[in-house]
Amino acid sequence: MANWENLDTYESYKKLLSLKGQVSLVRELTAERAASYSVPMASGMAYNYAAKEVNAQIMQVLQQLADEAALTEKFAELYNGAVINTGEQRKVLHHLARGQLGGAVTHDGKDERAFYVSQQQAIARFASEVHNGNIVNAAGEKYTTVCQIGIGGSDLGPRALYLALEQWAKANGCLKMTARFISNVDPDDCAGVAGITDLAHTLFILVSKSGTTQETLANELFVKSFLEKAGLDPAKHMIAVTSETSPLANNPAYLASFYMDDFIGGRFSSTSAVGGAVLSLAFGADVFDRLLQGAHAADMTAKETDITKNAAMLDALIGVYERNVQGYPATAVLPYSQALSRFPAHLQQADMESNGKQVNRFGKPVQYATGPVIFGEPGTNGQHSFYQLLHQGTDIVPLQFIGFKKNQSGADIEVSGSTSQKKLCANLAAQIAAFALGKQDENPNKQFPGGRPSSLIYGEELTPETLGTLLAHYENKIMFQGFLWNLNSFDQEGVQLGKVLTKKVLAGETDGALSVYAGLLGV
Amino acid sequence: MANWENLDTYESYKKLLSLKGQVSLVRELTAERAASYSVPMASGMAYNYAAKEVNAQIMQVLQQLADEAALTEKFAELYNGAVINTGEQRKVLHHLARGQLGGAVTHDGKDERAFYVSQQQAIARFASEVHNGNIVNAAGEKYTTVCQIGIGGSDLGPRALYLALEQWAKANGCLKMTARFISNVDPDDCAGVAGITDLAHTLFILVSKSGTTQETLANELFVKSFLEKAGLDPAKHMIAVTSETSPLANNPAYLASFYMDDFIGGRFSSTSAVGGAVLSLAFGADVFDRLLQGAHAADMTAKETDITKNAAMLDALIGVYERNVQGYPATAVLPYSQALSRFPAHLQQADMESNGKQVNRFGKPVQYATGPVIFGEPGTNGQHSFYQLLHQGTDIVPLQFIGFKKNQSGADIEVSGSTSQKKLCANLAAQIAAFALGKQDENPNKQFPGGRPSSLIYGEELTPETLGTLLAHYENKIMFQGFLWNLNSFDQEGVQLGKVLTKKVLAGETDGALSVYAGLLGV
Repeated sequence: MANWENLDTYESYKKLLSLKGQVSLVRELTAERAASYSVPMASGMAYNYAAKEVNAQIMQVLQQLADEAALTEKFAELYNGAVINTGEQRKVLHHLARGQLGGAVTHDGKDERAFYVSQQQAIARFASEVHNGNIVNAAGEKYTTVCQIGIGGSDLGPRALYLALEQWAKANGCLKMTARFISNVDPDDCAGVAGITDLAHTLFILVSKSGTTQETLANELFVKSFLEKAGLDPAKHMIAVTSETSPLANNPAYLASFYMDDFIGGRFSSTSAVGGAVLSLAFGADVFDRLLQGAHAADMTAKETDITKNAAMLDALIGVYERNVQGYPATAVLPYSQALSRFPAHLQQADMESNGKQVNRFGKPVQYATGPVIFGEPGTNGQHSFYQLLHQGTDIVPLQFIGFKKNQSGADIEVSGSTSQKKLCANLAAQIAAFALGKQDENPNKQFPGGRPSSLIYGEELTPETLGTLLAHYENKIMFQGFLWNLNSFDQEGVQLGKVLTKKVLAGETDGALSVYAGLLGV
Repeated sequence: MANWENLDTYESYKKLLSLKGQVSLVRELTAERAASYSVPMASGMAYNYAAKEVNAQIMQVLQQLADEAALTEKFAELYNGAVINTGEQRKVLHHLARGQLGGAVTHDGKDERAFYVSQQQAIARFASEVHNGNIVNAAGEKYTTVCQIGIGGSDLGPRALYLALEQWAKANGCLKMTARFISNVDPDDCAGVAGITDLAHTLFILVSKSGTTQETLANELFVKSFLEKAGLDPAKHMIAVTSETSPLANNPAYLASFYMDDFIGGRFSSTSAVGGAVLSLAFGADVFDRLLQGAHAADMTAKETDITKNAAMLDALIGVYERNVQGYPATAVLPYSQALSRFPAHLQQADMESNGKQVNRFGKPVQYATGPVIFGEPGTNGQHSFYQLLHQGTDIVPLQFIGFKKNQSGADIEVSGSTSQKKLCANLAAQIAAFALGKQDENPNKQFPGGRPSSLIYGEELTPETLGTLLAHYENKIMFQGFLWNLNSFDQEGVQLGKVLTKKVLAGETDGALSVYAGLLGV
C-alpha cells in the first residue's frame, strides 16, 4: 500500500519550493516551446502547457514529486477498490461507471462494474421505450421534455453536460427530448420552470442518493402539485435516481427507478445514473455511451506514470506549483465554447468541494494551502468582463483555456474575411500570448506586465467523446491534487453545519445572533 | 477640488493596518451586535455588517479614512461633471441616467440629464407603440419577443436585470415580451438562440456604443442572415442602441435608434438606453422607471458623509479592510434568490473591470492590492457546491449575502411544516451564523473554525425598486473603492492588447508562439 504523507514531507516538494519564480514567460515563451510543451489526451485532444511557468528543471522535480507521492499507486488503489474516502469509510468508484481500470471490485458480493453497467442498460431500455413511444403519458402521447430535479452534484454536472451537447445533438439529429433543470429551494426556481414547461409531455427525474435532500424533496412535492393542478397523475410523470436503500427506491410513486450507490460521490456522479438518465433521455443512450467511452479513454491515460503522457497528473502538479510555490490563490477556467457555459460552475463544485479542506485524510491540520477558488465564464464573453483584472490586476490568476477548431451547429457566417469560429479561435490564441508575453508601453496604463500563466486544452470539436475526456481530465486532476495535498477529496463535512443550523431555525430552536438573522429574514 | 492620493499615503490607513485581526467573530457575534450593526438602504432594504470583522474602533478609523480620502467630495465632483475618467478624459455620468444628484452637467451645450431623459422618453414611446400594436411586423402582427445582441456591458447587466424581474413581471401581469440575449462570437450562441426564437415576431436590439464591437457586428449579420432565410426584412426587426456618432446612428437599416454617450461606460450602462430598451420592451417603461427610482434613491444615500448612513461607502471601506489589511484575495456574492442567478456575473464584470488595475489614476504603479476576484452563484445551490471550501478551506473568502423575505412568483409549497421560501431564508440565516461562529468538534474533520466574515443585504421582495437599489449600491461601492485605491475605475485598457493581437491573427500577421497557438486552433 502507498504511503499517504503530507505534501510538505516530500523532499521533491522542498526542492520545488526553491524553484519559485524560475520562469519568465515574457522571455521564454517561444514558438519552439509552444509547439513542444504538449501532452496528448484521449479523443484526439491535447494539453498544452507552454504558457505555464515551468521549464525542464521544474518538470523534472514535478516528476519526482509525482513519484515520491506515489500518485500512480494511489490511483491504482482507488480503482482497485481501496477505502480511499477515509472519512466516510467508502470506496471511490466513479471510474468504474465508464470502464474497468484494474481488477474486479466487489462489495457485499456484488461486482461494482456489473452493477453500474446494469443501471446503464436499464436506463437505455427505458429511454428507448420512451423514444419509440412504448412508454407514453396517460393520453397515449409521447414525452417530449425531461426535467431533472436535483441539487449540487445531481444538478451542476448533468446540466453542464446537457448544455454542452444540446447544439451538437440538434445538428446531428439526435436531440430526442429537451431537458430542463430545477434545483434551488427558492420556490421561484420551480415555479419558473413549471410555468414554461409542457407538463403533460414531461418526464421528471427526481435525483437524490439519500432520498432525504431537503431542497429536492420540497421541489418534488412542488412539481407534483403543479402536475395535479394540471389534472395529471404524478406517478405517470416521474422517475427516480437514488440508492437502493433510500426511501425512494422501489416506490410505486415512480414510473421507474434507477440506482447508484455510496461509492460515487455527488460531484463525481455525472457518468453514473445521475447523469445517465437525463442524458440518455435527451440524446439517446448511445450518445451517453460515447461520453463514457471518452471519459474511460481519459482515465486510461491517467494511469501513466510519466507526466509527459498523463495530462491530468501534469495539470495537477502544475496547479500545486502555482498554488503552493508561486502562491496564487485562484484559478480561472475559460472555455472558448458557448456550449460549455456552465462547465466552469460544475468544475467549481468538483474542485472546491473536493479540495477545499484544512485537515488531511487522517484528520490532522495541514500547514500549506489546499484547493484554490475556481471561477470562469466562456470566452469571448469573459474578455469583455473580468479579463481586465486578469491582465492588469495586482494578483496573478492562473488560467485554463479550452478551445475547439470547429463549432457544433455547423452554422457560421463570414464577416470581414473570417468566420465567427475563426474569430473565436483567434481571440483565444491572442489571449494566451497577451497574458504570457505582455506588452511594453510608455503609458503605464497601457502597459501589460505579461507573465500570466495559462494552459490550453484543445480538440477538433466538442462531441460526446471529447466532452467525456474533458470531464474525466478534470475529475482526475482534482483526484491527483487531493493525493498531493494528502486530503480526503471525497467527503464534504463542511456542508453539514449549515444543514444542522437550518433545521434549528425552522424548528424555532435558536438564540443569539442566529435568531436575530432569522428574524430579519422573516423566518 | 479633492486631493487624489494613494491609499498608503493616508494616516488613517496606516492606523488601519495596525488593526489587523482585531475582531474574533466566533467570540463577538452576539445577538446585540447582529441587531445593531445595520445601515438602512433605499427601498426599505438594509445592509447588515454584524458578521464582518469590524468593531467600534475599526469603524472609527474607517470613518477617518472615508474623510481623509474625501470620498464624499470625490463623489460630488463626479456627479457634478468633473473629468473623473482621466485615462479617456471623460466625465462619468451614469448616475444622471436615474436622477440629478448635483448641479446641471452640460457638455457642448447639451444638458446631460435632459439627454438621458429624452432617450428614456423616446424608448418609452417606442415600447408603448410596440405593446399597443401600432408598430408591428410586415404581416401586421405584434412582436412578442425582444432579443438583445451585445457583449460585456451591453449584455451582462441587462441580462441579469431581465432575469431578476422575469418571474416578478409574470406574477404582476406585466411581462409584455420575452427577452433573449446573444453575446458570444462563438457561432453556436447565435445559431442556438435563433433556432429557438420565433423570428417573425422578434425585435432584435443591436447594442454597441462605438458601433465597431467585433462580436456584436458579426452577430448582427448572422441574425440578419437567419431573418432573410426566413423571408423576413431585417430592417423591420432590428433597432439600435449606440452613440450618436457611431456608424449605426440614424441608419435606415434600423426601425429605430436610441442613444447613449461616452460618459456612461459599458459596465455602468444598465440604467442607460443599453438596459432601458430591452427592459422597457420586456416589462414596460413604467417598470424600468421604477428601477431607475430605486437606483436614484440609493445614489442619494451614497452622498452621506456618515458611514453609518451610507451603505455603499461602508461596504467599500470594509472591502478595503478585508483586501488590504486582512489580505483576503477574493469575495463571493451569494444571492438567496434564483432570480439573481446572473447578478454575480454582472458584478464580476462591474467590479473586476473597474478595479482590477495596477496603476493609479495618474498612471503610477500602486504598492498595494486592488480589486479582488469576484465570483458567486445563488443560494441554496452554492451550498451544495463550493461552500465546502468557504467553510473549511485554507483561505478565507469574505461573503456578501443577499436575501428577501418574500418570493416573486407568489407560488410556494409547505413541506414538513415550512414553505420553500422559509427554508431558503432559514438556510441563509444559518450560513451567516455557521461561517462566523463555527463549531468545535472532537473530530477535526467535522470542526468549523468560524471567523469567516459575511455581510447581508436584505429586503422585503425583489422588485424593480429594490433591484435598482441593489444595482446602484454595488456600482457606488465599486466607485468608492476606486477612490480609495486612487484608481481610474472607468477605463479598461487591459482589454486592448487581446484585441490588437486578435486582429493580427486574423490578418495572418503573426510569428513566434502566437502563430503556433493560432495553428493549433486551426486559424
